[in-house]
Amino acid sequence: MRRIDSPKNEQVKAWKKLHTKKGREKAGKFLIEGYHLVVEALKSPVEVEAIILTESAILPSAWQVSEQDLVLVSDKVMNELSETQTPQGIVAICVMPDEPSYQDLQGQFLCIDEVQDPGNVGTMIRTADAAGISAVILGEGSADLFNSKVVRASQGSLFHIPVIKGDLHSWVDRFKEAKIPVFGTALEGGSSYTAIESQPQFALLVGNEGDGVNKELLEKADQNLYVPIYGQAESLNVAVAAGILLYYLRS
Amino acid sequence: MRRIDSPKNEQVKAWKKLHTKKGREKAGKFLIEGYHLVVEALKSPVEVEAIILTESAILPSAWQVSEQDLVLVSDKVMNELSETQTPQGIVAICVMPDEPSYQDLQGQFLCIDEVQDPGNVGTMIRTADAAGISAVILGEGSADLFNSKVVRASQGSLFHIPVIKGDLHSWVDRFKEAKIPVFGTALEGGSSYTAIESQPQFALLVGNEGDGVNKELLEKADQNLYVPIYGQAESLNVAVAAGILLYYLRS
Repeated sequence: MRRIDSPKNEQVKAWKKLHTKKGREKAGKFLIEGYHLVVEALKSPVEVEAIILTESAILPSAWQVSEQDLVLVSDKVMNELSETQTPQGIVAICVMPDEPSYQDLQGQFLCIDEVQDPGNVGTMIRTADAAGISAVILGEGSADLFNSKVVRASQGSLFHIPVIKGDLHSWVDRFKEAKIPVFGTALEGGSSYTAIESQPQFALLVGNEGDGVNKELLEKADQNLYVPIYGQAESLNVAVAAGILLYYLRS
Repeated sequence: MRRIDSPKNEQVKAWKKLHTKKGREKAGKFLIEGYHLVVEALKSPVEVEAIILTESAILPSAWQVSEQDLVLVSDKVMNELSETQTPQGIVAICVMPDEPSYQDLQGQFLCIDEVQDPGNVGTMIRTADAAGISAVILGEGSADLFNSKVVRASQGSLFHIPVIKGDLHSWVDRFKEAKIPVFGTALEGGSSYTAIESQPQFALLVGNEGDGVNKELLEKADQNLYVPIYGQAESLNVAVAAGILLYYLRS
């Protein structure tokens, strides 16, 4: 087991760079925090490169972790690495997983178009996992998958379900070629979601908090759906709408 | 129109106290921020006591606001009052509305039991409004209704739908007396929500992010429901689950 006490240590500086998207992409790694996420990472095929603990943190004996992957750090070092208000004294460094390639595209997909709030993106990954969806396609302009708030809101679901970063225009073309029905979502126009049946295969497009789904994508979709608003609210939160639609479509 | 330049002004100090629950309850007032929320407050029966603007903020001419309710402030004063990262230069002081009293209890209700995240509480108020629910009962131990994050996440829906603070044990008794079916929610036990029909009247109980709905409340409920988990996620976000259930039950 290594030990690092100084926040000025070069390794600590390198880990801190994983707080930014640029740093994560350069290193091909990301940082996760807290017991629950570390457990989920260890159970998953994702490579956990290092587990970093303070002396007051407890390493559960059930974790089969090689000594050489453990790093004991001072509270000062942990404060540099932690991004939460009440740190649990444990973070880990994970290697970004390879994205799956689909030769024979089939299944149920959630496509996220420019959703900027990391809490919404993480919550939708969690919901897609819960609903048993095949994969999430995270379109350009959305919050970064490995942003710490996305990771936290996903509650570990990013370790359970493939999340593929990609251009939604080309993905919609691929879905259409594979005869998978593509459903856009919009506040108006199209059909109430209850007007259609549940679907063995689908790709559901949900969009930006203020502007909704990109218009060109809506035009390409096979059908556009909306969740009716019965009260005076202007709209639903995008993660709530995604939950209602995913559970309806997959039922 | 009054004008206040100094952040040390007594009125500014009094307004700042509305950032805390204690201060809001003592004054019987709350503070809202941003154009959208001020518009929603002005359209509602809630009394807007003052609209506070910086010089760079624009007062839309369509707003019928009396000169004496307007306060022009310096950027320094606005920085004291604002709780957002990108202030729009407008806040307003509202009087807490009276809660409705139900003589003849009927309708569809969302009951929130100790949900602590203000974003979740606000999102559920927004969803209940969108779903056309009669009222939200906000149980003790939940995030405060007039907390600025709750207000923001509600996207103005707290001006559209009655939100009643109360003891959920006595509310469940009232619902049962009024023959309104009470549905608890739990991860296990009870029935999948799809096993029941939509309901003309109901009270739906949703619970704390970690612990779920209080056990005594679940025992009192007529039936407990769960949203099936098809993937590896342990649970759904409470606001997403509330959205799925409200839209299903009210359909």
